[in-house]
Amino acid sequence: MTLSDLDVARRLADAARDVILPHFRNAATEADNKLTEGFDPVTIADRAAEEAMRKLLAELRPQDGILGEEFGAKAGSSGRTWVLDPIDGTRGFISGTPTWGVLIALSDDSGPILGVVDQPYIGERFEGASGHAQVVGPQGTHPLVTRKTTDLAEAILFTTFPEVGTEADRAGFDQVARQVKLTRYGMDCYAYALLAAGTVDLVIEAGLNAYDIQAPIAVIEAAGGVVTNWEGGPAHNGGRALAAANPTIHAAALAQLQQAARNAPDL
Amino acid sequence: MTLSDLDVARRLADAARDVILPHFRNAATEADNKLTEGFDPVTIADRAAEEAMRKLLAELRPQDGILGEEFGAKAGSSGRTWVLDPIDGTRGFISGTPTWGVLIALSDDSGPILGVVDQPYIGERFEGASGHAQVVGPQGTHPLVTRKTTDLAEAILFTTFPEVGTEADRAGFDQVARQVKLTRYGMDCYAYALLAAGTVDLVIEAGLNAYDIQAPIAVIEAAGGVVTNWEGGPAHNGGRALAAANPTIHAAALAQLQQAARNAPDL
Repeated sequence: MTLSDLDVARRLADAARDVILPHFRNAATEADNKLTEGFDPVTIADRAAEEAMRKLLAELRPQDGILGEEFGAKAGSSGRTWVLDPIDGTRGFISGTPTWGVLIALSDDSGPILGVVDQPYIGERFEGASGHAQVVGPQGTHPLVTRKTTDLAEAILFTTFPEVGTEADRAGFDQVARQVKLTRYGMDCYAYALLAAGTVDLVIEAGLNAYDIQAPIAVIEAAGGVVTNWEGGPAHNGGRALAAANPTIHAAALAQLQQAARNAPDL
Repeated sequence: MTLSDLDVARRLADAARDVILPHFRNAATEADNKLTEGFDPVTIADRAAEEAMRKLLAELRPQDGILGEEFGAKAGSSGRTWVLDPIDGTRGFISGTPTWGVLIALSDDSGPILGVVDQPYIGERFEGASGHAQVVGPQGTHPLVTRKTTDLAEAILFTTFPEVGTEADRAGFDQVARQVKLTRYGMDCYAYALLAAGTVDLVIEAGLNAYDIQAPIAVIEAAGGVVTNWEGGPAHNGGRALAAANPTIHAAALAQLQQAARNAPDL
């Protein structure tokens, strides 16, 4: 029997859960310091989960390429690539918050076509693919449908700022934040999942890698949302991302980001 | 059969869960705007949960007083007061994050003697009382024990800033934030639960009410931590709170807060 791509993604997420959970809130798990400057913890769980997923892919999808946060790129022959971030939000992970996630995307030349955002501790999985957008969690299985908010004054905005970003990134973010009803911080990839689930309207981030954003793009687009960079182009290679619940609120936020860029061209 | 105080607290938390969960991530639940200035949403769930808890207390502990966020103070004759915040973190609640909580404390003249921090969506309950400190959640039942960190340079700090606080509050917070390894935002009451669970070292907040902090105090103290105001005195009446994993890291953070106050006496 051939597994569907969604089945493969679920197997990967299951494997990552099994490896990661024993390390969560476990004082014995060491957080290494990956950078000489700054604080970018990478735990044993991070590496072991990516290894487990790569092993499964070698078995189930040997022709596909792999791009993973911890072990880089492996070329494939199919034109398709599995894009893996075993623990997105490692700072949250080592702090014990339940808002980190396992990110799994499948991409072709057009960008991500399938995505899973999994939160193992809560036991919650957000899935998106063509014709499929659902969350499975503590309250059962529900469709993912984004909000209909069209006015920035009614919007809820999430970000990882003030932690991440350059001065110019921050100026753009602040320009949007001044217009919205509510700004919230610190949710890691979980913010994108909430956007897909229809509880928030905008997520604005910068300094992203491809593996941070591809799974969120697939889930959000399947649920009715829009994800681009700050110029309105594709965001799947990373950098700055603007994720929005619908095309109207996306256009409104994009106009503010572009206004900020015009106001401060030297940043 | 007479229920213990802990049994009563658990019944209250169960009742609040039942009332609140149907409203969580439910687009039909309206968020009213309680203040004319600013944004302080109070949902139907908030009020209904406090009503459910008050009804149970009228039955199970009729001699005790009640102080609740939504319906104020009810005098008792026992010298004891149940202090209730049905949804701490209503901004998080309306945004769909799983980091709001039901806060239940029992206080006498000395301050809080029992506390519960409950997260209904995750199904996670943090309890503290004399000789009792435990969490019950997705991974079973575990004792709560705070961290042994003694050096600010190794500490993880949580706060609701930049959302809350005056300029002077912010200066104090920033003084500590500059010393620590990692600062995280946006966890509402869940940050106190994580401190009790031994995954973070410090929580610093301002602008608190008694019902925001009494349950966290009881849980954290039972797990080995220390909670005071920014002068080292009792925090259970609200205002500014410094919660710390142990007396040593508490003293180190308190010294920084007091240094900030000396540096900027006019704030």
